[in-house]
Amino acid sequence: MTSIPPRISPPKRILMGPGPSDVEASVLAALAAPTVGHLDGVFLKVMDELQQMLRAVFRTQNRLTLAVSGTGSAGMETCVANLIEPGDTMLVCVNGVFGGRMADVAARCGAQVVKLERPFGDIFTPEEIEAALKEHRPKALGIVQAETSTGAHQAMPDIARLAREHETLVVMDCVTSLAGMPVEIDEWGIDAAYSGTQKCLSCPPGLSPVTFSDRAVAALDARQKKVQSWYLDLQMVKDYWGSNRAYHHTAPINMNYALHEALRLTLIEGLEVRWARHQHHHRALAAGLEALGLGYAVPATHRLPMLNAVKIPDGIDDATIRRQLLEKFGLEIGGGLGPMKGKVWRIGLMGATCTATNVLICLAALEQVLLANGLKVPAGAGVAAANAFYATPAA
Amino acid sequence: MTSIPPRISPPKRILMGPGPSDVEASVLAALAAPTVGHLDGVFLKVMDELQQMLRAVFRTQNRLTLAVSGTGSAGMETCVANLIEPGDTMLVCVNGVFGGRMADVAARCGAQVVKLERPFGDIFTPEEIEAALKEHRPKALGIVQAETSTGAHQAMPDIARLAREHETLVVMDCVTSLAGMPVEIDEWGIDAAYSGTQKCLSCPPGLSPVTFSDRAVAALDARQKKVQSWYLDLQMVKDYWGSNRAYHHTAPINMNYALHEALRLTLIEGLEVRWARHQHHHRALAAGLEALGLGYAVPATHRLPMLNAVKIPDGIDDATIRRQLLEKFGLEIGGGLGPMKGKVWRIGLMGATCTATNVLICLAALEQVLLANGLKVPAGAGVAAANAFYATPAA
Repeated sequence: MTSIPPRISPPKRILMGPGPSDVEASVLAALAAPTVGHLDGVFLKVMDELQQMLRAVFRTQNRLTLAVSGTGSAGMETCVANLIEPGDTMLVCVNGVFGGRMADVAARCGAQVVKLERPFGDIFTPEEIEAALKEHRPKALGIVQAETSTGAHQAMPDIARLAREHETLVVMDCVTSLAGMPVEIDEWGIDAAYSGTQKCLSCPPGLSPVTFSDRAVAALDARQKKVQSWYLDLQMVKDYWGSNRAYHHTAPINMNYALHEALRLTLIEGLEVRWARHQHHHRALAAGLEALGLGYAVPATHRLPMLNAVKIPDGIDDATIRRQLLEKFGLEIGGGLGPMKGKVWRIGLMGATCTATNVLICLAALEQVLLANGLKVPAGAGVAAANAFYATPAA
Repeated sequence: MTSIPPRISPPKRILMGPGPSDVEASVLAALAAPTVGHLDGVFLKVMDELQQMLRAVFRTQNRLTLAVSGTGSAGMETCVANLIEPGDTMLVCVNGVFGGRMADVAARCGAQVVKLERPFGDIFTPEEIEAALKEHRPKALGIVQAETSTGAHQAMPDIARLAREHETLVVMDCVTSLAGMPVEIDEWGIDAAYSGTQKCLSCPPGLSPVTFSDRAVAALDARQKKVQSWYLDLQMVKDYWGSNRAYHHTAPINMNYALHEALRLTLIEGLEVRWARHQHHHRALAAGLEALGLGYAVPATHRLPMLNAVKIPDGIDDATIRRQLLEKFGLEIGGGLGPMKGKVWRIGLMGATCTATNVLICLAALEQVLLANGLKVPAGAGVAAANAFYATPAA
């Protein structure tokens, strides 16, 4: 260590990658509010209100609904580690990076993992899941509603119903979907779900909203062995969030402030309005991207509105385009993950990022850098198509 | 959910509990800086500088030095879960809540846990640790340098030397000590250490600085089984913090900004100066507390400067005093943990909290509320004793 680095001064980006998304000024202000103690009555009230608002956003009455003190992957591990004991069978649907991650987590928890696999970008049919439930009789089914690596949307109601019929607990990844499209924990009958703060909630990363149904809590209570993670053990974590207020670990106070404000903004807008906003600007962006000749990695039948994975045209270098967008416009889009690395861009329209302004600047900037890199795109076509969509009365 | 709660407006407290401590304005400002992507070059530079500064604060050259994306207990679990495989023997020294926690974590990782126990407030002798090392030949020794539940300081150099002689890895808890008193990872030969951000670094809670020696990395590399926690698996986490920049999880961007600033302030002050500041104000506070008739829970020979555990006088109600201090003065002190609940107060002097102003207001406010609750304390004696200490030339 020869010298002390200068104070940071990060630039203001337009965050159109797979998360984090843009953060509203009032959320950053809440993040910087004075730190109080983790057992201070002021903070305990923040926790109570957070739980209420998380229940509203998850559309659930589940008592065990809280923010895990880690990012989305910690939420995934919380759900799996609390429900799985060594030797339990877990059926995990893998059609992208995050399904694959859940299978890895389950194996580390000692599960007999049965993977149901589909190529990246595909989704599963209720029939094939039912067949696997019949064959393997798993304790839990792990499935990703919104696969952040591919932009594919897995419809959940039929699958959750089948799982309940087979007395299998449903663990759902809604990291990218929550607050950007319908997530109906109680109506669908989801047993455990986890999300992240830095996607459609537009809060900085650092916490993972999690909810457990009564059925999942009963499974937790019936465990023979302790949860293998002390930090993520919900039996203890819920005693801190519940009326006991038993000290477990020191919660990330200021991150919880920020999530409180992000949830407030979400509920003030209204969930249905927010879901419709995501769908609306997604359609405008999709019209523009297709007019520029960029094709989606998944068919229109199961595209996520907030995560648009488009194929990189032949002859165009992934990293060059992303770097130029960042340098010239402060605009971040995401690259591909796993087998899609170098093959797709992931363009996010999440939470505060999801605006007409960002749709238009993204299309205009993409056009400029693609042209500059020798791709013959029809000049002005992207913006024109988006504007045509916005001008349509039905839009 | 009937209504949306109002925006939070937490009060400015004087945080003299066991953490979180007071946070400097520039650290809160860094926390609220614009969020950028977790693979943005701007953030990767922040991570590099964080690692450099953490090495300086830990006094180590260890390459594997980073901030785990969770609070101090996640750091504890990271150290234990990465070093222990099922069946390994781990010797854990338990003389407080956090030693007990480490034993629990180790058992959940499948360790054969051997507990060396001492009453709360006591410390261990090198001789008894050597005897246990000889008898049990553990793979790892877990020990708490600064026991936050009792205020006891465990001297480490001899113990670490003995552990190395017996080819045992030393895992050290320095959650409360780091940046407030000497922590010498390389000089002492500590193999794995973890801390928290909300103690003497005076950053809000949410991250856990961790460092692994080459010997610990070799043990990690030699594992037969995967680390049981995916989220805390350092084999993957270090590929994100290292030159590969391989995506693992989305780091808590803004929390890392805040830690960057807190480390800068620490190094600008200078570690030795900071350690001396903690010792100085601790002595003033101790003089004052003793003049008020409040006795320490641990003898002067092994007291922590930043965590002053004092016995609650007979006939005085723990919670009443703490509530009155909070309500009248915005002053937080901590209660006891575990068997010390209701028996001690824990008065923190950590990082930005550790000032003459806070020493004096704490003594003056304590005097007022103790008198108001019927305890005959010598009026003015606490402040007078502290001021006498401050007036001493040698002080």
